[in-house]
Order: sequence, then C-alpha cells, then structure tokens
Amino acid sequence: MNQAAAPHRRRHRADGEPRHTPRPTDYHRLRNPFPPVPVFPEDRIEAMHRTALRVLEELGMKVLLPEARARFKAAGALVDDATQMVRIGREIVDAAIASAPRSIHLIAGAPHRDLDLELGMLTILAGAGSPHATDLVRGRRPATLADFRDMVRLVQHFDVLHMQNQMVEAQDIPIHTRHYAVAETKLTLSDKFPSLYARGTPQVADGFEMIRIARGVTPEAFRSGVYAYTVINTNSPRQLDIPMAQGLIDFAAAGQLSIVTPFCLMGAMAPVTVAGALVLSHAEALAGIVLTQIVRPGAPVCYGAFASNVDMKSGAPAFGTPEHVKANLGAGQLARKLGLPWRSAAGCAANVNDAQAANETQMSAWGAILAGCTVLIHGAGWMEGGLTVGYEKLITDVETMQIFAELCAATPDDDAALAFEALAEVQPGGHFFGAAHTMERYQTAFYPPVVADWSNFGTWTERGSKDANHRATGVWQSILAEPAQTFLEAARAEELSAFIAKRTEQGGAPPVS
Amino acid sequence: MNQAAAPHRRRHRADGEPRHTPRPTDYHRLRNPFPPVPVFPEDRIEAMHRTALRVLEELGMKVLLPEARARFKAAGALVDDATQMVRIGREIVDAAIASAPRSIHLIAGAPHRDLDLELGMLTILAGAGSPHATDLVRGRRPATLADFRDMVRLVQHFDVLHMQNQMVEAQDIPIHTRHYAVAETKLTLSDKFPSLYARGTPQVADGFEMIRIARGVTPEAFRSGVYAYTVINTNSPRQLDIPMAQGLIDFAAAGQLSIVTPFCLMGAMAPVTVAGALVLSHAEALAGIVLTQIVRPGAPVCYGAFASNVDMKSGAPAFGTPEHVKANLGAGQLARKLGLPWRSAAGCAANVNDAQAANETQMSAWGAILAGCTVLIHGAGWMEGGLTVGYEKLITDVETMQIFAELCAATPDDDAALAFEALAEVQPGGHFFGAAHTMERYQTAFYPPVVADWSNFGTWTERGSKDANHRATGVWQSILAEPAQTFLEAARAEELSAFIAKRTEQGGAPPVS
Repeated sequence: MNQAAAPHRRRHRADGEPRHTPRPTDYHRLRNPFPPVPVFPEDRIEAMHRTALRVLEELGMKVLLPEARARFKAAGALVDDATQMVRIGREIVDAAIASAPRSIHLIAGAPHRDLDLELGMLTILAGAGSPHATDLVRGRRPATLADFRDMVRLVQHFDVLHMQNQMVEAQDIPIHTRHYAVAETKLTLSDKFPSLYARGTPQVADGFEMIRIARGVTPEAFRSGVYAYTVINTNSPRQLDIPMAQGLIDFAAAGQLSIVTPFCLMGAMAPVTVAGALVLSHAEALAGIVLTQIVRPGAPVCYGAFASNVDMKSGAPAFGTPEHVKANLGAGQLARKLGLPWRSAAGCAANVNDAQAANETQMSAWGAILAGCTVLIHGAGWMEGGLTVGYEKLITDVETMQIFAELCAATPDDDAALAFEALAEVQPGGHFFGAAHTMERYQTAFYPPVVADWSNFGTWTERGSKDANHRATGVWQSILAEPAQTFLEAARAEELSAFIAKRTEQGGAPPVS
Repeated sequence: MNQAAAPHRRRHRADGEPRHTPRPTDYHRLRNPFPPVPVFPEDRIEAMHRTALRVLEELGMKVLLPEARARFKAAGALVDDATQMVRIGREIVDAAIASAPRSIHLIAGAPHRDLDLELGMLTILAGAGSPHATDLVRGRRPATLADFRDMVRLVQHFDVLHMQNQMVEAQDIPIHTRHYAVAETKLTLSDKFPSLYARGTPQVADGFEMIRIARGVTPEAFRSGVYAYTVINTNSPRQLDIPMAQGLIDFAAAGQLSIVTPFCLMGAMAPVTVAGALVLSHAEALAGIVLTQIVRPGAPVCYGAFASNVDMKSGAPAFGTPEHVKANLGAGQLARKLGLPWRSAAGCAANVNDAQAANETQMSAWGAILAGCTVLIHGAGWMEGGLTVGYEKLITDVETMQIFAELCAATPDDDAALAFEALAEVQPGGHFFGAAHTMERYQTAFYPPVVADWSNFGTWTERGSKDANHRATGVWQSILAEPAQTFLEAARAEELSAFIAKRTEQGGAPPVS
C-alpha cells in the first residue's frame, strides 16, 4: 500500500547537494500499520469515560463567552451566568458523540494533497505555535514573517508533513494584520491543507474569505467542504476562554474543522496521575466537541489530547517521558471508544538539537503512532516545550517521520523477494553486491536518508566531522536556496492581495481575548 | 507488574551530583508490554521458513570445522568433506526445534540478577564487540582493559542493562591472556550474567573454570545450570567458521548458552530484500541451533537475527533504517513460529553522539521491542556500526532503555488515580501543584531522568549551554568516581587469581581461528 509512483521526488543529500531518485515512495496518505497498543484495561477506560462525564455533569466547565453559554443552555445544559459555570448532562454528550463525523475529508490546494481524517489513517504535522525560531546560522530569536515563510517552504518540501500549520509566530507583523500575512504566505507558497488562527470572529471571517479566494470556490461551496482547520486549546483545568469558544462556534457554523486539544500537564494544570490527567483532558475535549455539535450537528471536529508531565522539582514541562507515552496510549483508547478521528502530539523539552531532542520527539511520536492517532502534531522541529521551532531540528525530525512513513508501506514478500535463486547463486562466504537479484533492485530497495551520514569515521572526519545538527543546516539551506514556488494562479493571487489591502485599510482585525 | 521495591536505588543528575530517590521502580525482570507487530502475512512467514529449509537441504552450509561436519554427518546430514558443504534435511531441523528449550533460566552472581529467557520477557544489553572506545575527554582510541573495566562498572550501575557482555576489546592485553583479564574483570566488578568469548576450546574451558570458581559451584552443578553465554555469528552467507562451530559444540556440551546470530546486511552479505535477508538469516540460525541440539538435546540456545541494510552507494552498513525495523519485525515472526527465545539488536552508524545516533538506536530498538524480542543487544553505547562504544552514548541510550523499562510497568488506574476529588478541589483555570492528590504522589509519580535537562532556555544557558552529549560526560564520570565495588568474596577472588596465574604461566590460550 501507499506505493503509488511519485517518480520525480527531489531529495537532498547531507552535503546539501540535491539528487534525484526514481524510488517509488508515496508519503501522501498514510495508513498506520501498527495495531493500537492499550495501556489500561478496557474496564478502566470505561471508568475514565464515566468519570469525565461526571466531571462535566457535576463539576462543569467555566465558559467565558456569553454566546457559548447561551448555546449550551439552549441545548439543555445547566448554566450559571454569575459563575460562568456550565454543567453538561451525559445525554448531551452522547448526542454530540453520535453526530460528530467518523471520517472527515479535507480539501487542500491540489487533489493529491487532500486528506481523510479517520481512525486508521496517519497524518503528520510539523511543530507549531512557537514564539521563537532557531538555527545554527542566526541563533535563537523571536520569530518573524521571514521565518514563517521559510517554514512554510520547508513543510511544503517534505511530503511527509501533510498540513500547513502555524509553525512560528510572525512577531514582526502587527497583531491586527498578522493573520493576513501568514494566511497569504501559506496559500501562496503551499498547496497543503492550512490552519487558521481562532482569535475572534473578525480574524476567522477574514481567514475563511482568503481561503475561499485562493481555492476559487463560492461561499456556498466553501461551507459544504472542509478547507481549513484550527486548533482549540482549553485552559485546563475546566475552562474555555473567549477566543477558543468563539472559534469552536465560528468553525462549526462554517463547516470547517476544529481540533479540540486540552493541553494537560500532569502535576500542574492536570492531576499528577496519567489516568487523572486523561479524565480531565477527555472531559474538556468532550465539552469542546459538544459545542461544535450544538452549533451544527455533523460539523467536522477532531478529538484531541496532549498530556505529559512536569518535572516536579522545577515545574518545567517534560516530553518524551514514559508518562507522556502512556498518556498518548491511553488517549488513543479513549478516542477509539468514541470512534472519532483524534489528534495526538510528539514533544521535546530540549534546548538544543541533540540526542535528548531526538530521543524525546521520537519516543513521544512512537507513543502517538502506537496509540493509533489520526493526526500527529509537533512531529518535526518543536523544541523547548514549544517555545522554539528549530530549522535543523525540523530536518532531523523529518528523517524520523519519513521512516515512520516508510513503515506504513508494504514490504515485498513475493517469491522473488525471498531470493532462493540469489542464495543459490552466491557462494558461501561471498557477497550479493553483484548478484542479479541485487542489481535489479538496489536503486530502489532502501530508504535514502535526508540527513543521516553512514560514512565511516575516517571519511566522516575528512569531510569535517559534522554532526547531524550541522549537516541539517546544509539541508534546509539548499531547499531554501531554490526559487520559491508559487501555488496560486495570478488572478487569485491578485484578488487575495486586493482583499488584504482593503481589509488592512479598514483597520485589519485585532485578536479578541 | 515489575513494581517490587528497590528503595535505595542511587541515581545521578545531569549535573553529575548523585541523588537518592525512594521511587519504587524495578528494571530487573522486564515483561514486554507490547503485542508483537507483524510485518509480513503469516503465509509469507511460512514461505520464508520453507525457503530456509530448502536452503539448508538443497544448498547447504559450508562448515569449516571437521568435528562439526562429523557431528552433522552422524545426525544424518549429507556432508561433502571435499567442499566442506553440509546439507541438512528438514527432519533434522524439526527435531532440533522440538528439543531446544522454550524457557532458559540464567544464573547470575546474585539471585536478583538471574534472568529467564522466553518469549514475552525483555532483556536489554549494552553495545558489544567494539575495537574502539570514545568519550569527550579522551577522544576515540583503540579500547583497553581500563576502558573495558569502566564499561563493566557502568553496565553494573544501571539495572536496565541485564547482562555483562563484551562491550569493547581490551586491545592492550595480549590475545593469549586477554580472556583471563576480561573474565576476571566481569566476575569481580559485577554480579550480572556474563558472556564469554568463543575463540576455541582452550579459552572456553578457561572461561567455564573461572565462572565455576567465581560462583563457587562444583563442575557437576556448573553443567546442570546456565552460568554463561556466548554469541555465535555465522559468516554470512552460508558459512560457519572454526571457532564459531567449536563454540556451539563446547557451550552445548557444557550446558551453557549460545546465542546464534547471523549478521545479515541486505545487499552485501545477504539478499537486497528484507524477506530474502530473513530467509538467509533464518537458515543460518537454524543450522547453528541444529548443531547445539545434535551435541546435547535440550542444550540452551537462543535464536538470533541481526539484519539491516547497506548504503548501496558506498556499501557502508546502515542501522535504524526502515529496512532494519522491518527485518526486526519479520525476525520476530519467524522466532515466534519456532517458539524459541530470540535475540534482536538495535544499531547505529553515526560517528558522534548526536541526533542521528539517538534516532537510529531508538528506532531500531523499537523495531526489536515491537518484534517481541527476548534479548535486545546493542541497546546502549554502540556507534559506527559497532566499531566504537561511546561512554556518553551509553549514558544517553540508557535513558531510552529506562523509558522502555518504565513502559513495562503497570500504570495506576484505581479510582483514586482517576482523581475525581482532585478535579473537584481545583477551581477552573487553577493548578494541581498543591492539591492533596498531587502531594501524596509527586515524589514517585514520574520517571526521573539520567541525562535529560528540562530547564528553560535561560536557565540552561546560565548553566553553560551543555548538550546531552556533554552532560553525559558528567554522568559517567560521577559513576566512575565512586569507589569500585567488588562482588567476589576474598577466598574466591584469590582462587580465581591463582588459576589465572597458573594458566598464564602455562602460556595462556591463544584464540583458535
């Protein structure tokens, strides 16, 4: 499976020189080959689900947006406007779980970029949400639109990164026009499925309009297909703030995708136990899903979970820990109980792209993949617990993600692959370098690395003793040195530009808080 | 499970300062929590097994040791002494599979170090067999007995490393007495289950005698329990050399453990396909197992597989690749078909302890663990495709192995762990730092890292911006700065010393080739 030809994929060597390979890999639409791994017995998952329902019913969520409280109330929830508390009965939750879609078709800028979110599929995203960017050339700094533009091009370059998310904040752009700049960048330099900020209705409406223009669809067509997504983080514990609640309402009303992801750090914003953190995370995700289904039954929504632990000595967030892996596995069990597509996350707390950084991202990614996640976010580049996206880390992590993608592909197992004739041909103690069986296959038999260097110590030393981090610099530089490709035809680019100019003249749209 | 108390475990912080934690972890006898993952359909595994039987029956193995050929012949194999080829009928193979033990109890220097090899258990070993050692203080150099001694102490220190294997070669010791020095080091500075070289009968007999002395057992008791093991590598393709064949015979005759591990590099010493490499590896492992069972039915023997691919441009070995992971998964299917305990391997081709090094070891270790391996070798420290063991890499990999061990332990899931009361106690938007639920658990809730640094960028910078590789230096230095512990009582140490002196005076025992 996943073996359709993409014959002219361009790859880059560790020394930065691009090369072409005819290897017929396809990282576009991955199906997770690993049976989901449980961490809790099924009856305890049921107990967690029931406890989360008790949390919603007896303790409730604090919902800061009056419109959201009114919608919950109209749907039968018990609402106290003085305390802003909303208590949601289990029948309301059950109805939402029943109406939320099991499969969601995502429409990108080109058909081969379209995605389907459903249990069993695997979608991988770069790290997102970071205020800083870092690389070995320019160091760590507040991220700019130029950084974001670079990241969009790097994400576009690697097929294994399936969506355009908000990798870094373009901090040099004023906040009332930043959403124009970042959306224009995504829609111009990429044809992948894009995210939008949920920072209040005016920004969201602008975003929808920009995507509608870029995709060339009518307002009606836009509302009947899924063209964009946003990530909704609750304010754990048990709180939903104004822009997040508004985002759930606006995206659901427009038929666009919300990914509802509580960020539950065990011992800090969540209970210190994996099971307790999952109860909280599950309750909050369900509250968000309920709001989308109240607004529009059947609205596209993705269950999300991102739970790890803190260092109890310092309170610092930690990722790639055993507790993080276990939380991912448990969240997968809860998501499968609902039957909904769901988002998990890798993570990394390291301050530099070293062995710790690699180990944490890979360990937590395995947790997510073995949990059967539908969307794996922060798969590449995410460092410092999300405070920085690293150019080099994005490259070294892409290697890991590509290996996951290779593991999704079938392995030749026909009689010829079993190689009896080759085994007969090569004498004992000989080698297979020149065997016909090898010659027929060697060009496409193995995964070609992006950044791994397999040369021996002598050769590696002669070439300058560069570690993976420094080799990765050459990789991203060579990708960005190529002319930027534009994915928007001239007329649409012009229309988009005119829209942005008009809205900017009107004062833009400051974020709502 | 695996939660028995080891209350006074000493741990080391990233800054090198030892700390004590009452955390009740136990990494001694791990049970693999992951359901084995298949990579091939069962009927194709059956086809691989049948093809391997054809290889043994129709093509045969070249066996260089006359005694081994004679034993194969006596068991009914077709032997041509002129060509040294041995063709083994499937009924001989079937008998060996039937008589090989499903469970093997290994007797170490202390009861809590004993191990059981059987499907479902997970035993982890450090990297082994390297001619070089490297660390950030002294650089890369030919390994010495001092390096080996350091490695024995480091392996002894970490409970997650379960046996004492031959991490590096003590190249400063003459080859006719080296086996005395390394065995004495293992038996003195460690109570873990030890390996011995299989470099000819004289060295093997010396090794058995040294272990018998150290363990204080009679020759009869030694022969009825498993006190040592050796790793037998075939000379792929289809060749068994003199010391390896002799090792299989001598260890089986003495009731000691052979781990038969073909090292099959796809595209070099093995077919270019995963399936073809596994057919060859399976055939060679079966040939080795057959020889042990001819010598002594029921002799302890472990199925082994170590297959990865080469870089087809340079011929350099690669590890942690998708092909390596798939080979591990497929080997697990073949081992489960036999029902025998089996050895898999992690691996790493990197020349420095960087993101590549971490990713390759972890990726291949996941392959081995998801394949349900019984013994995972090269789990920590192995670099450059086995040419070097790194002190720092040993430390950073131990972190990964400890996380695997943590994943083997049960996760609290009782009603108290679900934390409803804590969720009721903490107000929306609040935190759980001071909650009673947290206070009762925080000291033992989370895995404490060996080398990971979770401090924020500012603190990390103030502390000297040390990456994981440099922090690992502090960890191994602090372990080795403690006084070396002796595990041998004085009388046995004296007897061992006298034996070595006598044998050295007699001229030692040069390796056989």
